Parts: sequence; structure tokens; C-alpha cells
Amino acid sequence: MSNRAWHLVARPTGLPTMENFALRELAREPLADGEVRVRNLWLSVDPYMRGRMNDAKSYAAPFALGEPMQGGAVGRVVESRAEGFAEGDLVLHMLGWREEAVAPAKAFTRLPAIDVGAEQWLGNLGLTGATAYFGLLDVAAAKPGETVFVSAAAGAVGSAVVQIAKAKGMTVIGSAGGAEKCAFVRELGADAAIDYKGGRIDRLLAEAAPDGIDVYFDNVGGDHLDAALAAARLNARFAICGMIEDYNSGSNHVFRYVTRIIAARIRIQGFLYFDFMDRMADFHRDMTGWIASGAVRSRETIHDGIESAPAAFLDLFSGGNIGKMLVRLPG
Amino acid sequence: MSNRAWHLVARPTGLPTMENFALRELAREPLADGEVRVRNLWLSVDPYMRGRMNDAKSYAAPFALGEPMQGGAVGRVVESRAEGFAEGDLVLHMLGWREEAVAPAKAFTRLPAIDVGAEQWLGNLGLTGATAYFGLLDVAAAKPGETVFVSAAAGAVGSAVVQIAKAKGMTVIGSAGGAEKCAFVRELGADAAIDYKGGRIDRLLAEAAPDGIDVYFDNVGGDHLDAALAAARLNARFAICGMIEDYNSGSNHVFRYVTRIIAARIRIQGFLYFDFMDRMADFHRDMTGWIASGAVRSRETIHDGIESAPAAFLDLFSGGNIGKMLVRLPG
Repeated sequence: MSNRAWHLVARPTGLPTMENFALRELAREPLADGEVRVRNLWLSVDPYMRGRMNDAKSYAAPFALGEPMQGGAVGRVVESRAEGFAEGDLVLHMLGWREEAVAPAKAFTRLPAIDVGAEQWLGNLGLTGATAYFGLLDVAAAKPGETVFVSAAAGAVGSAVVQIAKAKGMTVIGSAGGAEKCAFVRELGADAAIDYKGGRIDRLLAEAAPDGIDVYFDNVGGDHLDAALAAARLNARFAICGMIEDYNSGSNHVFRYVTRIIAARIRIQGFLYFDFMDRMADFHRDMTGWIASGAVRSRETIHDGIESAPAAFLDLFSGGNIGKMLVRLPG
Repeated sequence: MSNRAWHLVARPTGLPTMENFALRELAREPLADGEVRVRNLWLSVDPYMRGRMNDAKSYAAPFALGEPMQGGAVGRVVESRAEGFAEGDLVLHMLGWREEAVAPAKAFTRLPAIDVGAEQWLGNLGLTGATAYFGLLDVAAAKPGETVFVSAAAGAVGSAVVQIAKAKGMTVIGSAGGAEKCAFVRELGADAAIDYKGGRIDRLLAEAAPDGIDVYFDNVGGDHLDAALAAARLNARFAICGMIEDYNSGSNHVFRYVTRIIAARIRIQGFLYFDFMDRMADFHRDMTGWIASGAVRSRETIHDGIESAPAAFLDLFSGGNIGKMLVRLPG
């Protein structure tokens, strides 16, 4: 069986290209004591990985040049020299972008025996869902009855935000690019979906929320953030999760509504899901409940085969995904 | 005695001009029961008044066209038909921009008998000082030992922020325009003063705070805010008090460091001093103590005569003041 991994071979300037990546066979070494060998089944690709391709200090260490990339993955144990792991176990870990992961046991988490697709541990039950949950409920402190605006609402995090907000009794306006995505946002339960390709986002948002918004969940930055400033009601809270518009371009957006921060006393807070590890049990309890009741559903855009990983990743930046973007491996 | 008041006669687009104002004699009516007549001694002019010249909903009602302007003022009671007010009492009120104020007693607050200049009730003991205090200590939750950056540090609010921060044991970097103002900022106790006219503010701030800033107190907006985003340490807090750069231009600044909100988990919060009325007693206790000990000193830029009020106000937007800008009347 092949044992390939995507290596970072050149750092991108602006939008990454295929030339930044190389698929290389890894040597298959015998396991050391305490190690586990996992055959990956699902690989996650996420916008935040763009930041790790730069050689810049940030919340996660940069990917090393010439080394395999990393990222969320679900796989099956094929060999174990560690207590607590047996052949056949399904595990969650961060050694993605490769067919086979070998590491000490502490790098792997055994999946709980609940009846969901294993891939959901990369989506609504994983980093994606936790980001939506903590951002909406902790960072923005969104309350039942409030009006929530979420950008990239057809994306992985955005679609989770829409559904959590509806489960909690909020009014939800989602933005997405194009009719198909907007239809999906409405299917998720959003009260309104805005196609930002159909006009100026500030005007479209003002029409969709004539009384303004209490909460903005930002996945996009740029004009969406500016439009949210314009629409913010008194004491609005913004959870800043991502700014996908800015990851490649180097942000240089003009903000026209920034003085509304004062008049409306807006609170803008950047966050990462791992700031809220102490609330993880609450998240798992609520999210498994919502999945069981059907309040939160998952949708994936799936690329097949290790070869497709960079294309799947690059598609994130051209709006190629509805729901969670995943790479499926034959195992 | 004359009884003139500045009326708003045309709404400005962009920077206000003398043509927006007209000085007109008011009829002197007899007092009704419960009313007080006050001869003004000090008038405050403040950047926030620019917003009230627009016909736009904001935190304060717009000034009415054809009517007298309003603003903070200190005066002396010359006639009273209200219990609790006697001729000679010094009072604080919001009927500025005029020589004489007539209103029901509830519009006036008698000044406490403490040994400070009456004009300080418009400055460090008034809206100006309270804005600095609540913004720094409540909104930004600045702590001893932290590094605070404050823009317009030679201005009324900024100079109070510098002194409060030093009284609380913080490291303070202030920005101001020109050598004279920067010297004043250092006199106030700032650890460093940045002359923003001397280069790019992001580079100057990075030099002054090589380890970054924990708190930014924003009076300016625009490039200063962007520079603070660049310099922010993990979990930095920004208190957004004013954006004088944007009040007239209509804000259209390019922000290059906005994605740092996520990486550094910055919290940005707009505020107004009257959001913190329940802390007013704490403010008065601390500020009177600091004034008595000399930890907080006041400096004013004074224009004389009712005729000078619009010019004093316009000077705020061209950097014409060090410390609090006031208009002094002969009483």
C-alpha cells in the first residue's frame, strides 16, 4: 500500500498554487514502543491552514518547508504498540494530508461509540462545530430572540452557526455566493439568505435586516464586516472567526462604517475555538443532542483520493464547497 | 448685558465652517416657577459635537437647525425661582454655546464645594475625565504593569488617559502631532511619545513598543487604529472612544492589519461615558484624589469671549489644542 504525504515545498505569496505542494512517498518504519499506525479515512482542509503556510508567527506554528503538511484527520488503527489502541479502532488526530499517520499514542483520540459518521468528527462534532458554537454563544453571547448575521453561511462553520442559532431561537440571516448556496442556507433554516454576488452587501443586509443586527459571526472580513458595522444595533457583538477574503490578498479593505463602533457601542472580539477548551463538554453534549434530533445536519463537499487534497484546499478560496470540505481516502 | 447664543444655521458636509453657525441675541424672558437663570463662565467644545451637527440618528439627538447649539458649560446663578438654587451658586449643565442659560432646575447641578477651578468640571472632573477613566479601566480593563497606547495623547481625553494610566502603574505610549505636544505628553508622565507627523505610525509604534501593546485607547481611528492592530499582544483590548480623523472625512480608511483581530484575539469595544453612570461615584472619588495629590494635572487651551466658540470648536479638528479646549466668558 502506498504511503504518500503532501509536503510543503514552497511558501505561497497570495493565493496558493499546486506548485507549493509535492506528493511524496514516506518510508514505512517499524513502530517504536508506545506508537500507533493509522490508515487515514478522512482528511480535513480548512481556511486556517493558509496561515500556517506562511513563515510567520501566529497562533499555530508554520508548516515546515520540505515536511508533510498537517491537519485534522480521521483514520483506523492498523498497528499498535500502545496500550489503549487496538487494530480497527477509529481515531481523530492532527496528522492529515497523508495516507498513513505514525505517532505516539497521545497524538490520537479514540472516537466515542456514538452513531454518527466518522467524518462528522472533522465537521459538526469537531473543530468546525466547536468554532461555531463557542463563537456564537460565548464570544458573541447571542441570545434567543436576537438577530444574527453570519457570512459564508453555506460553508462548514457558517452552516453550523445557522443551525445552532435556529436551535436556540434566534433570527438568522446568512450570506453566501450564488443561488445554490443561498438555497442551501434557507434549507438549513435561515430566515433570510443574501447572495453577496447580487449587489452591494451593505445594501442587501440593510434590506434583509431593516431593524439591524445584534450579532455578526464573521468568516469573511472585508465588505461583509463593514456591512455588519453599518447594520449593528446598540450593543451589538461581533465574533471574528475568519477573514477568508484577506488570507491571500493581504487585507487592504476600506472600512466606511468604522465610526459606528462608538455610536452603537459594538464589541468586536477575535477568537479561536481552543480558547474555550473548558466548555468542550458542554459543546459535545449540546451538539450530539442537536445531531440526534435533526436540529443540526451535516453536508459535505467530498474530494476523493490523496491526490485531490491540494485542489480541495484551494477550492475553499474560490467558494468551491457547500458545507464541510473533506478528502476521502480508501483506507 | 448681551444674551447671545450660537445657532446652527446650516448642516456641514465634511469639515464645519463658520457659515454653519450664527450668533444671535436671545430674548430675555421672565423666569417661570421652578426655573433658574445662569450666566455662563466656561463653555466646553468637544469633538463629539460634530456628530450632533448631522441630521442623523446617533447616541445624542442632532442639533436642530435654526436653534441654539448645546454643550457642557459652567455658570453662575443670577436669578432663581427654584428651591435649592440661589444667586451666586456655581452650576454645571448642558446649555452651552450661549451667554445665558434659562431652564428648569433639574437641568443644573450645583458644583460641590471642593477646591478646584470651576472649569475642571468640564475637564478632568467632567465628561472628559470620566471618558478617560471608564474607557481605560472598565472598557479596556487595563491593569497595572500593562502597556497602554493612547492616541491624541495631548488632547483633553488623551492627557487624562496618560495620567490615569501612570497613576495606576502602567507603561504608557502616547501619540501626538508635533514636538510641542509630544513634549507635553512626556511631561504628563508618558514613557514614550510618538510624533505621528514624523513617519508612519505603525512603524513608530513598533519602535516604541517592540513587545507590543496590551491596551489601545483610541481617540483618532484610521491609521492609528490600524497601527494598534499591528502592535496588539495576545488578548489585547481596545477602547474606542473617538475617531476624530473620520468625523469630517466620512471614514474610508484602509485597514491592513485587521486579520490580527483573530490571531491576537483582540477585543474592540466602542463606548460612551454615560454607559457607566453607576461607576460615577468611583470616578469622582479617584479623580478628586489624583487631582489633590497632583497625579492628575489639567491644562487648558482657552479662547475668550462668546464670539470665539466656533473657532475654538473648529480648532479641535486641526489639532489646535493642548489639553482641554475651553471658551471663557466674562460672566
